[in-house]
Amino acid sequence: MSETALVGREILARAEALARHSDSPDHYTRTWLTPAHLAAGRQIAAWMREAGLAVRTDGAGSLVGRYEGAAPGAKAIVTGSHYDSVRNGGKFDGVLGILAPIACVERLHRRGERLAFAIEVVAFADEEGARFQTSFLASRAFLGSFDEALRERRDEDGISFDEAMGAAGLDPAAIAAHPCDPASIAAYVEVHIEQGPVLLDAGLALGVVTAIAGGTRERIRVTGAPGHAGTVPMAMRRDAIAAAAEMVGAVEARARSVPGLVGTVGLLVVKDGTGNVIPGEVEFTVDIRSVDDAVREAAERDVAAAFGEIAARRRVTVSAARSHAVRATACDARLQDLLAESVVAVGAGKRRLPSGAGHDAMVMAQVAPVGMLFVRCGAGGVSHNPAETVDEADAGLAAQALLDFFRRFR
Amino acid sequence: MSETALVGREILARAEALARHSDSPDHYTRTWLTPAHLAAGRQIAAWMREAGLAVRTDGAGSLVGRYEGAAPGAKAIVTGSHYDSVRNGGKFDGVLGILAPIACVERLHRRGERLAFAIEVVAFADEEGARFQTSFLASRAFLGSFDEALRERRDEDGISFDEAMGAAGLDPAAIAAHPCDPASIAAYVEVHIEQGPVLLDAGLALGVVTAIAGGTRERIRVTGAPGHAGTVPMAMRRDAIAAAAEMVGAVEARARSVPGLVGTVGLLVVKDGTGNVIPGEVEFTVDIRSVDDAVREAAERDVAAAFGEIAARRRVTVSAARSHAVRATACDARLQDLLAESVVAVGAGKRRLPSGAGHDAMVMAQVAPVGMLFVRCGAGGVSHNPAETVDEADAGLAAQALLDFFRRFR
Repeated sequence: MSETALVGREILARAEALARHSDSPDHYTRTWLTPAHLAAGRQIAAWMREAGLAVRTDGAGSLVGRYEGAAPGAKAIVTGSHYDSVRNGGKFDGVLGILAPIACVERLHRRGERLAFAIEVVAFADEEGARFQTSFLASRAFLGSFDEALRERRDEDGISFDEAMGAAGLDPAAIAAHPCDPASIAAYVEVHIEQGPVLLDAGLALGVVTAIAGGTRERIRVTGAPGHAGTVPMAMRRDAIAAAAEMVGAVEARARSVPGLVGTVGLLVVKDGTGNVIPGEVEFTVDIRSVDDAVREAAERDVAAAFGEIAARRRVTVSAARSHAVRATACDARLQDLLAESVVAVGAGKRRLPSGAGHDAMVMAQVAPVGMLFVRCGAGGVSHNPAETVDEADAGLAAQALLDFFRRFR
Repeated sequence: MSETALVGREILARAEALARHSDSPDHYTRTWLTPAHLAAGRQIAAWMREAGLAVRTDGAGSLVGRYEGAAPGAKAIVTGSHYDSVRNGGKFDGVLGILAPIACVERLHRRGERLAFAIEVVAFADEEGARFQTSFLASRAFLGSFDEALRERRDEDGISFDEAMGAAGLDPAAIAAHPCDPASIAAYVEVHIEQGPVLLDAGLALGVVTAIAGGTRERIRVTGAPGHAGTVPMAMRRDAIAAAAEMVGAVEARARSVPGLVGTVGLLVVKDGTGNVIPGEVEFTVDIRSVDDAVREAAERDVAAAFGEIAARRRVTVSAARSHAVRATACDARLQDLLAESVVAVGAGKRRLPSGAGHDAMVMAQVAPVGMLFVRCGAGGVSHNPAETVDEADAGLAAQALLDFFRRFR
């Protein structure tokens, strides 16, 4: 068995071991600062130390392991991802981007090899934010940014944000008090499972991310007039679901019109729905994403105009409430090229692709050039789900390409 | 004030009084054999007796009031409707078809006027079937037909069918033991609120029903593949809601293609729906009705074919389970003409229209020619709803036209 394959096997074995630290005995769920989360953090810190990294914990519970370069105090290539999960999630989402660089540093350390730059492996404590409904909590805190209003929140069990931090031995007042020094970061690179089917479909183990999509989410309400399914002639109806269905079609058609643009209706609810009543009110969500903000914004305008036209023609009303909006993040062109060289060097193709999902790299882009390396997602590209898989060989190739990148980076 | 207006006022006052007999203090709900239902029955029986009708109760709790014709034992024009309601229903649905003929007989009785035929006013105890999820229970029992399997059912409070009957002093074993004699029925005529907007839209108080629509209801399941809303390109999606939305459009388009045909998606549920996930499974209902069974069946075939085409093209699967099917009932041509003459005679236009909703007349059509007189439904045509209204003047005209019909009938 090749060394790459052995590294891949070890990464998968560690991901499996880490998944046993779960908030639930029934499935893999690991949320910020629970006993399972703290235990997973201790395990990661132990692996970091074994690999030759000097470990510190930051104010949000993230673990930062540093492997010095040839000259002490050199700028660092920061790399990492998150070790919390969504509820009933997949074992590789986030974790792969922590275990792969640990494996790389372990090889450098065994060989006594020092590079021109230090390497800092960061295990972000909270990206998914399932416990307190947060977003990028740990990477934001890592940069010294924290929204104090979050301290008012309570989790599903009624435990407050401050209580959760106190129980973990962390000080809520100091969560972002000791940020990293942006001047010390040469680049941020994140390895992540693709969470989609593109590489799987292309038959490629790895891909270089061009940009992370921006997106908006809106909740749409369509109000028509309820009526008896048997007694109201078609021409006299103001049917909220017929209108909503046409709007769903408009979202899909507009998203299909531009490669890379995606539009999704994930939720649709018929108010007081029953088989023999014409629906009077329907609510649905519209999620639109693109790596090109101008493309996305044009699509949003067109979709809104289509909704207005459909509503007017059908004599229903439509309203929209925006619940989420984030702009796209471009990956650094030079980092993309270097990562692409490394991917080619390990024989994993030369595919570049956008990321439709958000990642800690979006936050890190505020202080450093960022790059991302995607790893093929098995099982049809399913993620955020227990069915999520990564091939042993692909995990090994990811670590090999990342090590190549570390050595290649100048 | 004209006598017709006074009669209309009395009918509405009685409907209001009857609605106070409700299972709930908050809204009007009257289900089979509850205390409120039994009290309403006693009130109706009292009004029947005041009007000169000889009253008997049948095995299902329906009240049958007979007003003899000129010759004792003459064949009867049977007329009536139901005095149960849907949950949170309207005060005129059913009740109007009991109160209008009582008012007619009252006038005949006061004048000592006897007709060539007897008149039997039937207040059916249960048509909506909200308590035990039955359908046309009372009119079926009236004809001697009863499904013994219903006796296994329990209501929402756990009270069994037999217990409910026993508490009302009725014998479940004798529910259909003493049916009416079909040979004694010359015709069945039912006055009913339209439950739709056609007469309201036409500016007419009354209309003659041509036929009662037949209909089918199916539950459709569309199964695609769930996925991340950001990471699965449009072309690779197997989106269950996009497919279902196109199917909703196909139902509507096909129903619009033939006047009188209606198609409704009343319920649609996205399984595990959430804003950032492509739906993997959607269920929805399809309700198709027409007064012409061949028209309806052709539409059902075309809709099924469209669903199959949409599913194949979108690489999703579709399955259908039929939950309900009833054939159309034609109203008797001669009764339609006679009723039309009576409607014209009272100056209420000459509109004929189909009934999209089911009525006791569908059951009575098994043993007699049936006719129906629709009364304009106010409030935009809303029914099965507290907003349901009937104009005083329209109720008076309905009674006047019905009386004219009784006199005209040969």
